[in-house]
Amino acid sequence: MATRIGITGIAGRMGRLLAEEVAAAGAALAGGTRRGEDPAPLFAASDVVIDFTHATAATAHAAAAVAAGKPLVLGSSGLSPAEEAAVAKAARQVPVVYAANFAPGVNLFLAIAERMAAALPPEQYDAEIVEMHHRQKVDAPSGTAVALGRAVARGRGTTLEAAGIESGRDGHTGARGTGTIGFAALRGGQVVGEHTLLFAAGSEHIALTHRSFDRRVYATGAVRAALWLQGRAPGLYDMKHVLGME
Amino acid sequence: MATRIGITGIAGRMGRLLAEEVAAAGAALAGGTRRGEDPAPLFAASDVVIDFTHATAATAHAAAAVAAGKPLVLGSSGLSPAEEAAVAKAARQVPVVYAANFAPGVNLFLAIAERMAAALPPEQYDAEIVEMHHRQKVDAPSGTAVALGRAVARGRGTTLEAAGIESGRDGHTGARGTGTIGFAALRGGQVVGEHTLLFAAGSEHIALTHRSFDRRVYATGAVRAALWLQGRAPGLYDMKHVLGME
Amino acid sequence: MATRIGITGIAGRMGRLLAEEVAAAGAALAGGTRRGEDPAPLFAASDVVIDFTHATAATAHAAAAVAAGKPLVLGSSGLSPAEEAAVAKAARQVPVVYAANFAPGVNLFLAIAERMAAALPPEQYDAEIVEMHHRQKVDAPSGTAVALGRAVARGRGTTLEAAGIESGRDGHTGARGTGTIGFAALRGGQVVGEHTLLFAAGSEHIALTHRSFDRRVYATGAVRAALWLQGRAPGLYDMKHVLGME
Amino acid sequence: MATRIGITGIAGRMGRLLAEEVAAAGAALAGGTRRGEDPAPLFAASDVVIDFTHATAATAHAAAAVAAGKPLVLGSSGLSPAEEAAVAKAARQVPVVYAANFAPGVNLFLAIAERMAAALPPEQYDAEIVEMHHRQKVDAPSGTAVALGRAVARGRGTTLEAAGIESGRDGHTGARGTGTIGFAALRGGQVVGEHTLLFAAGSEHIALTHRSFDRRVYATGAVRAALWLQGRAPGLYDMKHVLGME
Repeated sequence: MATRIGITGIAGRMGRLLAEEVAAAGAALAGGTRRGEDPAPLFAASDVVIDFTHATAATAHAAAAVAAGKPLVLGSSGLSPAEEAAVAKAARQVPVVYAANFAPGVNLFLAIAERMAAALPPEQYDAEIVEMHHRQKVDAPSGTAVALGRAVARGRGTTLEAAGIESGRDGHTGARGTGTIGFAALRGGQVVGEHTLLFAAGSEHIALTHRSFDRRVYATGAVRAALWLQGRAPGLYDMKHVLGME
Repeated sequence: MATRIGITGIAGRMGRLLAEEVAAAGAALAGGTRRGEDPAPLFAASDVVIDFTHATAATAHAAAAVAAGKPLVLGSSGLSPAEEAAVAKAARQVPVVYAANFAPGVNLFLAIAERMAAALPPEQYDAEIVEMHHRQKVDAPSGTAVALGRAVARGRGTTLEAAGIESGRDGHTGARGTGTIGFAALRGGQVVGEHTLLFAAGSEHIALTHRSFDRRVYATGAVRAALWLQGRAPGLYDMKHVLGME
Repeated sequence: MATRIGITGIAGRMGRLLAEEVAAAGAALAGGTRRGEDPAPLFAASDVVIDFTHATAATAHAAAAVAAGKPLVLGSSGLSPAEEAAVAKAARQVPVVYAANFAPGVNLFLAIAERMAAALPPEQYDAEIVEMHHRQKVDAPSGTAVALGRAVARGRGTTLEAAGIESGRDGHTGARGTGTIGFAALRGGQVVGEHTLLFAAGSEHIALTHRSFDRRVYATGAVRAALWLQGRAPGLYDMKHVLGME
Repeated sequence: MATRIGITGIAGRMGRLLAEEVAAAGAALAGGTRRGEDPAPLFAASDVVIDFTHATAATAHAAAAVAAGKPLVLGSSGLSPAEEAAVAKAARQVPVVYAANFAPGVNLFLAIAERMAAALPPEQYDAEIVEMHHRQKVDAPSGTAVALGRAVARGRGTTLEAAGIESGRDGHTGARGTGTIGFAALRGGQVVGEHTLLFAAGSEHIALTHRSFDRRVYATGAVRAALWLQGRAPGLYDMKHVLGME
């Protein structure tokens, strides 16, 4: 029998793309919620639920997943520490895929970023991350850019916070700190998402760039994650697990 | 007969590059001055003199040009209003090229930026400027990036300040303002200078990029200006005139 | 009162995009014709008509524009000399915009390419053109790439054939010829169109890049041309006039 | 005691850079040969010898390494199958590092290219390789571009020849072949070396770019290889071994 997938916020743009990708993957659409609706019936009727609505809904949806004993794919961004803690707590009872970005290419990018950072000494190679998104985006840097920064830090055996962040340089900045990770944000047009990670040394540069042309790539990845979750043990997973990059 | 070019401060790094470029251009090196030397004999022996020494020497070199009736290429930066006035006064008697940046490509870039901005409506095309420089640079955005921003604003019939600046986005920025000009700064390695101006609309992007690899490009431009000055009427010119962009 | 814009072939893919762009521009949709319909009522009801149907319809549409005394935007390609003559004749009585490519950015790119080439000596700056298109494209280089090459040659006071073409380097090529124009073609994914023109000197590179994401850009340009035509004198115009590049 | 490094062709441009990097690394310069000199005394006086002279000298230098029982770093390119066989035979008696490119970033690039190719299905992701070099280069594609193509093919479980090569598209090419690997070559200015590997799918692109600014990076890598060879068992190594990427 086809896996029954539920979609919160099914009437929104991402919700509609998710519903199309559920059909394209040969799964069954269990239904969806609209703004303000109680999610409990949706979780009861689904084998797994995909939630891309909003950070402020993550805690309630995680609780609903636990109450119904159903796996959850969570794609909202900008979660607060308290919201992230609620998700992590839920993942002790049900399996959860929580990722900043569901595009296969982006997750490959994250895996490679860590490897590059491990191979290129921070004393010689300055790491800079540039991202571009559409003009409506209200925050910077993007969640994916931050995830790239964390991957670089991990590859260097440290954390982003300990390495030092240089984000949004403007005015008198002083010289670049050795080993810090720089971030710059461009906004314009209808860019779905572009990220570049550059390692710059005196005599060579090496850069990795990812460009998303269509939000559908996120829906495709989320449905892939939902299908992967069937039969998993409780735990907090990300797309590296889904794509077999760990 | 080859044009005889004199070089003030010929023993400095820029002076040596200028001497090499005089030879490369097939001109004759008329000689040069060293720190503290009277420039009058150099001006007498030269068809044209190039001065990249220091702002504080500009007044004396402009006067020497007038006294000898010889054209001058002036590339010192940071001139005070009084020094600029002395240069302008000299230019009423001899032809002078005075520019902030002698790289042909940078001057072409500035001219084209204004033209692009005039052709692309700000309601549809978001203008973003990205620059990258070596890790020692202590401020952002670069002077050339700001000059690009001013050129864009001019092409749109406004000023950079009136258009609105979004520089160094970080944190909650809100949606991009229509007609504003964005700036982002990267730092790393030993990059001499890279600038990109991007106009991003929903269905097309158009971008102009300039990369400097070597400070020699300034010497090349200055020698080109010197040769162009031969036979010119007195007046204050800049690189746009030399490059035929006016 | 909003300008009333008529669209021939309104039921086709391009017709539908044009209708959407008329609305987006705040103009009024005067109506449209379908295959085989008499265009006279449409011209009567419109302030200006846009025709992207087919070269074989250009003569009849040009005559209808003259009969109704209405301006015409003509975007069909592949007109025969006789069809082009009919359009030119009509343009003696009504204003007509006729262009091979309505993307504002592509027309701007062509204009700037010529100007850059005029400013950058071919002995120092090697001109290289790179284009990328979707994997189905069967020839190389693209028509726009060739048009860019012609613009570079024109800016240098020569022709593409006389300058020399280095297209598709492979194997033993010998050193690059001075003043020649290089072409390289990439194919992959579903790229609508990307073109880069690079001028490479020893100490600086200057590059212009255009990326099309959506065929909608042609509709946007055509509507802009339609609005620009209001109140113009009879004559044959192209997108350079519309964009203020002449 | 400092490792004694000998350099064949020490009077050439690369030889001088190697000598400088030997000093920078704190090793001892054992001496060097000039064109036509017998290499035997140099090998006798050295702990390890670096040879970047010419493919036609590789056989003799490999034999000299065996005769003296000394390790060899070989950076000449364009070896014939017979010359490569001679090197492989020597490597059964002394340890040899033989690599197409000694830049650390290029070798990291090759390793990552293989991993990316393994993760991105060739039915969806078209692989294109673009390289740019200075205007004097006489062949295309570059050896490093070909090495990248081989790495992509290896990642896909095939060979470059079996996958199919589309190099230097020009004229009627037909649609892109699924799974083939495309090559394009740009020439201009004094570019030391730029390589991009692009994987293009319909809704995302992922690209890796390497830029060399200075041939010194090859000398740095070669000296690193020479020091790494001390105490190694006989065998044929490449830079992946030196950099710990295997």
